Amino acid sequence: MTMNEAPTVSETEIECDPSSELFASRRIRVAIVGATGYAGRELVRLLERHPSASLVRLMSSGRGSSGPRPIESSHPVLRRSASCRSRTFQPLSAADLNSSDVDVVFLATPHETSHSLVSELLERGLRVVDLSGAFRLKDRAAYPRWYGFEHVADEALAQAVYGAPELDGEAIRRAKLVSNPGCYATSVILALAPMLRAGWVDPASEIICDSKSGASGAGRTLSEKLHFAEVNENCRAYSLFNHRHVPEILQALGLGEGRLVFTPHLLPLTRGLLSTIYLRLSKPRKIAEMVELYRDFYAVAPLVRVYEEGVLPEIQAVAYTNYCDVGFAVDESGRRAIVVSALDNLGKGAAGQAIENMNLMMGVAQDAGLV
Amino acid sequence: MTMNEAPTVSETEIECDPSSELFASRRIRVAIVGATGYAGRELVRLLERHPSASLVRLMSSGRGSSGPRPIESSHPVLRRSASCRSRTFQPLSAADLNSSDVDVVFLATPHETSHSLVSELLERGLRVVDLSGAFRLKDRAAYPRWYGFEHVADEALAQAVYGAPELDGEAIRRAKLVSNPGCYATSVILALAPMLRAGWVDPASEIICDSKSGASGAGRTLSEKLHFAEVNENCRAYSLFNHRHVPEILQALGLGEGRLVFTPHLLPLTRGLLSTIYLRLSKPRKIAEMVELYRDFYAVAPLVRVYEEGVLPEIQAVAYTNYCDVGFAVDESGRRAIVVSALDNLGKGAAGQAIENMNLMMGVAQDAGLV
Amino acid sequence: MTMNEAPTVSETEIECDPSSELFASRRIRVAIVGATGYAGRELVRLLERHPSASLVRLMSSGRGSSGPRPIESSHPVLRRSASCRSRTFQPLSAADLNSSDVDVVFLATPHETSHSLVSELLERGLRVVDLSGAFRLKDRAAYPRWYGFEHVADEALAQAVYGAPELDGEAIRRAKLVSNPGCYATSVILALAPMLRAGWVDPASEIICDSKSGASGAGRTLSEKLHFAEVNENCRAYSLFNHRHVPEILQALGLGEGRLVFTPHLLPLTRGLLSTIYLRLSKPRKIAEMVELYRDFYAVAPLVRVYEEGVLPEIQAVAYTNYCDVGFAVDESGRRAIVVSALDNLGKGAAGQAIENMNLMMGVAQDAGLV
Amino acid sequence: MTMNEAPTVSETEIECDPSSELFASRRIRVAIVGATGYAGRELVRLLERHPSASLVRLMSSGRGSSGPRPIESSHPVLRRSASCRSRTFQPLSAADLNSSDVDVVFLATPHETSHSLVSELLERGLRVVDLSGAFRLKDRAAYPRWYGFEHVADEALAQAVYGAPELDGEAIRRAKLVSNPGCYATSVILALAPMLRAGWVDPASEIICDSKSGASGAGRTLSEKLHFAEVNENCRAYSLFNHRHVPEILQALGLGEGRLVFTPHLLPLTRGLLSTIYLRLSKPRKIAEMVELYRDFYAVAPLVRVYEEGVLPEIQAVAYTNYCDVGFAVDESGRRAIVVSALDNLGKGAAGQAIENMNLMMGVAQDAGLV
Repeated sequence: MTMNEAPTVSETEIECDPSSELFASRRIRVAIVGATGYAGRELVRLLERHPSASLVRLMSSGRGSSGPRPIESSHPVLRRSASCRSRTFQPLSAADLNSSDVDVVFLATPHETSHSLVSELLERGLRVVDLSGAFRLKDRAAYPRWYGFEHVADEALAQAVYGAPELDGEAIRRAKLVSNPGCYATSVILALAPMLRAGWVDPASEIICDSKSGASGAGRTLSEKLHFAEVNENCRAYSLFNHRHVPEILQALGLGEGRLVFTPHLLPLTRGLLSTIYLRLSKPRKIAEMVELYRDFYAVAPLVRVYEEGVLPEIQAVAYTNYCDVGFAVDESGRRAIVVSALDNLGKGAAGQAIENMNLMMGVAQDAGLV
Repeated sequence: MTMNEAPTVSETEIECDPSSELFASRRIRVAIVGATGYAGRELVRLLERHPSASLVRLMSSGRGSSGPRPIESSHPVLRRSASCRSRTFQPLSAADLNSSDVDVVFLATPHETSHSLVSELLERGLRVVDLSGAFRLKDRAAYPRWYGFEHVADEALAQAVYGAPELDGEAIRRAKLVSNPGCYATSVILALAPMLRAGWVDPASEIICDSKSGASGAGRTLSEKLHFAEVNENCRAYSLFNHRHVPEILQALGLGEGRLVFTPHLLPLTRGLLSTIYLRLSKPRKIAEMVELYRDFYAVAPLVRVYEEGVLPEIQAVAYTNYCDVGFAVDESGRRAIVVSALDNLGKGAAGQAIENMNLMMGVAQDAGLV
Repeated sequence: MTMNEAPTVSETEIECDPSSELFASRRIRVAIVGATGYAGRELVRLLERHPSASLVRLMSSGRGSSGPRPIESSHPVLRRSASCRSRTFQPLSAADLNSSDVDVVFLATPHETSHSLVSELLERGLRVVDLSGAFRLKDRAAYPRWYGFEHVADEALAQAVYGAPELDGEAIRRAKLVSNPGCYATSVILALAPMLRAGWVDPASEIICDSKSGASGAGRTLSEKLHFAEVNENCRAYSLFNHRHVPEILQALGLGEGRLVFTPHLLPLTRGLLSTIYLRLSKPRKIAEMVELYRDFYAVAPLVRVYEEGVLPEIQAVAYTNYCDVGFAVDESGRRAIVVSALDNLGKGAAGQAIENMNLMMGVAQDAGLV
Repeated sequence: MTMNEAPTVSETEIECDPSSELFASRRIRVAIVGATGYAGRELVRLLERHPSASLVRLMSSGRGSSGPRPIESSHPVLRRSASCRSRTFQPLSAADLNSSDVDVVFLATPHETSHSLVSELLERGLRVVDLSGAFRLKDRAAYPRWYGFEHVADEALAQAVYGAPELDGEAIRRAKLVSNPGCYATSVILALAPMLRAGWVDPASEIICDSKSGASGAGRTLSEKLHFAEVNENCRAYSLFNHRHVPEILQALGLGEGRLVFTPHLLPLTRGLLSTIYLRLSKPRKIAEMVELYRDFYAVAPLVRVYEEGVLPEIQAVAYTNYCDVGFAVDESGRRAIVVSALDNLGKGAAGQAIENMNLMMGVAQDAGLV
């Protein structure tokens, strides 16, 4: 890449990049589509600090003929000081996404937009990390029910890898298309995978997941349910027995339908998500055994933190981080366990994990730019 | 009123009214237009407990042909228990507002809606308390600038009384149309009136009002500025040198243009408003003198609380009340004073003061249903 | 009662009482011990508006020789306007609580304080509503584990009635001592009682209660866990498998140990509590059947609101009310149900229910002063 | 430094440092005293990502004989994943702070602790950045009034440099002891310096600063004023005409006493501070002129962002950043101006600016680790 080839990122700007001392030639060239939403904002924020990546294209998720706009018009927090030229973003234009100057495209776009964009991007030789749900379910027949559209991108869907780095890092390393997990799904999957894989959970039991999320997880689109005075000093459950993250959880954990009850709740806070997960164990266990099992399972996972007995994850411990935290409680019988997990819905639950997936795809440290 | 004449309020419901032991014949029959917004909700909540009023009509501020809807579809908090039939509201229909079964109409409607409704209601012999800004300014030429429409309801405007009970109670008692003050305006007017009327303020000085309001003051209409994640953990100033409450403050206090600088701020909370007002005094004063001046001025005002030296109003002291609180600080010279006032923007700043005005108009205790 | 007998409540004050048109002789004379906490504040706020009660004594929960203090020194929101003399409260003095001028004493005191006070108050012929946990468990052997003290008030404990009006109204009517239920316990008991009594719940299953409460439920005593910056933008689980409301829930519902898993969470809001309760049913049921069962069960309960299919309770619907709301969801099989209940932890979860119990004890309408 | 000499930072830990690819020998060796508070936490968080600094000592601000504790016992957010050994902190021990293994000491300690520590640290050849107020005022006679203690560290006070990098960068570069400005003071100084230095402000006028801060600015020490339920849904003014940041503002800006009225307010949010500053100008000015003046003044300031006409700083734009943002409004006359400034009280208002000062003292880029 020469500077001439990257018109939306000026020379001045590159000099403002705190990691510019590294050679530009070694950097991963990144485009973000959907940069005007909350996940897009977090992608920009994290990638600006990433030691091996350079932002070369920022696009909104809407097409249009308007010209480039400074990023602070959508994200005041990303404004720069006088000595740096502002970043700009442009309307969505797939034609401007080419492998000659972009290595990886992040899609922080609506499900339908991702569904219709991905095949073209793959054909152009671009790697894609899709933060929407459009490629999370392997069964294309499931899309009408859960996402409200017919899935017709068969080839892309076939090669999509579900981006849970702790479960399937090798496949992600080889992937061209990674489908980034949902925020709730990540908190549940990471909380359950070690115990399920170890066969500790009573197979006749149901797993109850009671999850609570901050409002940024619901995105930036206006709705009365997200009007300030409706969320503040409030908490409510929604999508009971019917949330679209359930099928991806079952798929990732190899659970049959009906094994999991999942209830999301909206919290009056911006960033963070807590899952309280109730399990019945096949035989009595102590917390210390669980800690050991999980610390083994996540021994090389840089972005999972397993808590010792007596301490539990909470939202403040993960807000503005890219970690998923996991902790445990067991009743006196040792048969009834609770796993509590927490993450930032915009961090490990969205942008952070998307970058973790990019890191694996591009062969840099899994947690580069994330700790 | 017989039960047959009041189809939206059932017999069952009347029995659920906690104050039903009083004779219905003595009660003020009240209609609310704009019952689906936040001020409308507070009107219903307060009037349900009012010892001398009965709600006989609830309407939304939009016309339409849809039938009546239960009130809990807009206001879950107003749902009733199994033994009481729910209140319902219907689309706006001026034809259903008649003096045969309604005494007072509260308009919690957009400015333009109030502007176009009021004359008709007055002609039908109804008393009106208008919570919009449509009749606040006596100078009709001011409306295009401040409210964006030409005022053509000359007769109504001429008879409209600005509803500040502590300043003009007698006129309100005789009024057919009361224009309920703005929430910011109320906090500033009550904080300044005693000192200005006493001539204590240096006439060459400017008065600086720095006000902070919770988000319910901005209403229920969706906008990005009121999206939860935009308001939470945020505070911002807006409408600098250009807020539409300024002309009504100047008019109520008899101040010339340029005597007042007013800056509103949005707080990350739902209910409450605080004004910090900076004054230069004509000669040195002590706080104790101010307390005495204000306690005299508000000696018979049931909804103003004047603080002694060393304590200041804060939002929690007024949230969910109908009071305006006022307190003082003075610098060592005695010439620079700060008046702090607080009120609930839905209470004394809107619905509470509207009911106070109704109480005066209808000859019941000024604070009936409000303390 | 003559004025001489009620030194803390002045003549002036009585005239400020909005319900003073009723004869004082018919009023219930009420004392509150522990008036400086949050539940105490709510008791004062509600009892000031109560149509049949008069506040005649306010005491803090600490003994001491300091004189009376104005109530606004602890509760600015309870300040009065210039024309009313302020209420005052005094240090705890059991000697000042006599049946000659007090009918009912509310104890919003620490468990140990209630434990040591109640017997003396009963001996003096006073009726007592105790908001602490000191008399909630019938088994005195349970106190050391759950409350950290040996229970020695055998006689009082024997006559204490657990104050769940919907379950045991008759006993409450006859009681001299009512032990007011815990806030979490109330939300769980009211959500489960109808289905358990009807035998709908699979007796081999465990019931999972995931509850979320605002911070006022934890009281006014300082602790790092309740420091603003630790609660704001946070949510955490606590007391897993070990919360002291569990034994009172089991006792009230007649459930055996181990039938209930209960996890409380702290929410970043002030007032309100939501419980999400997971049940396995003995045979398939529809939501409509549940609604019918609950509406029958609560047909004459004025402070329980049962939701129809498709709507669920949320905290905003109950904050600043004295209701407990209950709603339902069922999975496709009809065997797995979720009951969602909500209440204000200071309303139906504390002060509101305490007043409801007083109403029953004193023979006035169950919801007097509460709707 | 060899690993043997830095017992609290293990080899494992160094490998977890994301910037470890740089040679350790080039890194600034940093100690933090007072690491258990909120400013201390932010120092750790920022310095862990700093490209040229290594944390070699973490101490609490209390002395004691207890051993080292893992940092997550005070700051769960700073926990590390399984593959990294946790950082620990130890009780304050000045004897463990030596120039052989530490270059710079940050003091995030109470005023009195800093006052008694600094001289000893300077004598040992350490550079010090003090975040307390103990060395902010050049006039030692001012300390009893504003800080409640007699200042006896004359030599240290004489050499202390007030750490406002945009005003006095050269002195900071040469300093051994930098006194880090207060959070409110920073927001006011940066908002006013350009206009005051240019002589634009009417010298006969008073400047009114109405500031609003999140609760983390008040620290982690428990008090009823900072109890969650007291701050949430509240806003209050405090320290009117009497806040200790006033003398440092006057000193930094060369203003005489009485030229500035400053009122701080507590906001119900955790991080961020907004100042609304009212000025009278010597002659009429346009916003565009102000923008130009400020952009010139801050042309090389990497952490000040000057807003163009029509946009104003708000707290969300600066939360979790190290910027101070500045914007403008002017009335029709051009004589009355408002400057709005915003910063994160833990970022540019505390830890961020402290690191900026360290950067200058140690000759690395002013914004290293801060953007």
